[in-house]
Amino acid sequence: MTLDTIGEEIKKANSIAILAHESPDGDAIGSVLAMGLALENMGKQPDRIITEYPRKFQFLPGADKVKKESQVEKYDLAIALDCSDLRRLDGKEYFENAHKTIVIDHHSTNTMYGDINFVNPVATACCEILIGIFTYFELDIHQDLGTCILTGIITDTGGFKYQGVTAETFEFTAELLRKGVNVSEIYEKVLETRTRSNFELLKRILNRMEILENGKVAFTYITSQDEEEVHAEPGDHEGLVEVGRNVEGVEVSIFIRQIDNEAKYKISMRSTSDINVSDICYLFGGGGHPRAAGCVIQGTVEQVKEKIIQEVRNRLN
Amino acid sequence: MTLDTIGEEIKKANSIAILAHESPDGDAIGSVLAMGLALENMGKQPDRIITEYPRKFQFLPGADKVKKESQVEKYDLAIALDCSDLRRLDGKEYFENAHKTIVIDHHSTNTMYGDINFVNPVATACCEILIGIFTYFELDIHQDLGTCILTGIITDTGGFKYQGVTAETFEFTAELLRKGVNVSEIYEKVLETRTRSNFELLKRILNRMEILENGKVAFTYITSQDEEEVHAEPGDHEGLVEVGRNVEGVEVSIFIRQIDNEAKYKISMRSTSDINVSDICYLFGGGGHPRAAGCVIQGTVEQVKEKIIQEVRNRLN
Repeated sequence: MTLDTIGEEIKKANSIAILAHESPDGDAIGSVLAMGLALENMGKQPDRIITEYPRKFQFLPGADKVKKESQVEKYDLAIALDCSDLRRLDGKEYFENAHKTIVIDHHSTNTMYGDINFVNPVATACCEILIGIFTYFELDIHQDLGTCILTGIITDTGGFKYQGVTAETFEFTAELLRKGVNVSEIYEKVLETRTRSNFELLKRILNRMEILENGKVAFTYITSQDEEEVHAEPGDHEGLVEVGRNVEGVEVSIFIRQIDNEAKYKISMRSTSDINVSDICYLFGGGGHPRAAGCVIQGTVEQVKEKIIQEVRNRLN
Repeated sequence: MTLDTIGEEIKKANSIAILAHESPDGDAIGSVLAMGLALENMGKQPDRIITEYPRKFQFLPGADKVKKESQVEKYDLAIALDCSDLRRLDGKEYFENAHKTIVIDHHSTNTMYGDINFVNPVATACCEILIGIFTYFELDIHQDLGTCILTGIITDTGGFKYQGVTAETFEFTAELLRKGVNVSEIYEKVLETRTRSNFELLKRILNRMEILENGKVAFTYITSQDEEEVHAEPGDHEGLVEVGRNVEGVEVSIFIRQIDNEAKYKISMRSTSDINVSDICYLFGGGGHPRAAGCVIQGTVEQVKEKIIQEVRNRLN
């Protein structure tokens, strides 16, 4: 079975790169760090490569071992985690050059771009898939490993709140608590704490937020200039799309963010209804989950807004 | 033991009033509704009395049975839930007139104002205490009862995030999920959904928020006029105090809300550090928990702000 093959490839490899999607969130980072610790427990010395490591995940075990880049040109093995598409992979050159590649992911839109692909779209988080893999490998899920894994689960379940959270998620969390994993600390650091820059961005997106289509659509944006003015760092825009989603009656929340001062925006969408935002983002070359997805669209704020809202409008009852 | 006495009093009583603290939150409401269902399972026909029932809890089983007031002058038994002090009890006249009174609560500041007092300050929620009581009474915690109970737990743990959440909380939640309780729905309805009025208030408190004392204190306010302008209903101000608490570096968040157009404000405080806000609120005749407390202070915004920040300042390092 696939897990045996994965186990064999890991055993054979002398050099291993662990990668995840660009603009990494808590599940990407938790997965990379958890895999790093697990491979170390298996006697390996893997490279964890993340180009822009968000400050708020600095507290995680193994964060100090993360590299921005690597001198190794050709890894024996590259493992891509929580990344649906090679184009979105941070450090994809290491992946493309590696002798062997493994993809472990939970996005239903995964393009199966590895030599070995272990994709489970039912899992709430990539970290949840890792639990299964580590258990299969008979690795002890100790406090540090558990902290990384729970970071992924807390991130991708929005703190145990999304549909798709199972009884097992809660049972596993109970087990981790007993092993000394501090759920509150992870929750607070990962989901709650707003940097001052994020706080300033929050003000701006709130003041600009439009509630459209009879209250069913929330739209807001930030520009590169906003981010410069509030001294935003990577990750400081996170969570802003949720604000619109949570307004009573809103079915689709759209948050767009200018990329590098260009006429180009990164779109983040959230749905609280049957409207599948992954389908919409797919039309623009993006993807994600039915209730949380993203894409990139060229144009001004007004142009991008019109393009995306047109698609939402077509799907509203 | 106390639980046996409580059981006997319930058995003896023909008329029972179930009450909770004024401005009821999810734990107060969940407790009242859970107790209502449990007593019905025990063959009783209790009155659930809540003067101002917030709209967002309308989805809970038994919400349609809640009364604003009652014609019964002298109940055989009155049960006060999640209320630390008789002065804060909604419908305290029913409690004061009742033949027998029971207090079930988890606030450490409880003044033990009942004939029988069952207070456990270690419990994360009053609803958590009810689990123990119902289990002791050998009542089946079915889906409806579980939904009410989980509403209290999700409210008072902030969605499983506060310190004090135990492995048992997660295990119990796993069990409820298996019984068909919809954790996501409760979470979304109780913690996530902002009414349009709450959204408008959020904008105002954000634009007014001051970050003081070297970034350690967040202060903001709303007036009665604000609430009128945004057509606020009971409960629409909830959660606003959390916004300041979540800003990086903030140790104490203060949110004050004018009462009935008077020179009088309801203070809500949150702490993320060792500063005990319950102690501070106690000085002004209020109380609560070390990390979440409240009180009422006379004065203008500026006067109230100065009074409360003075006390915080004395406790900052």
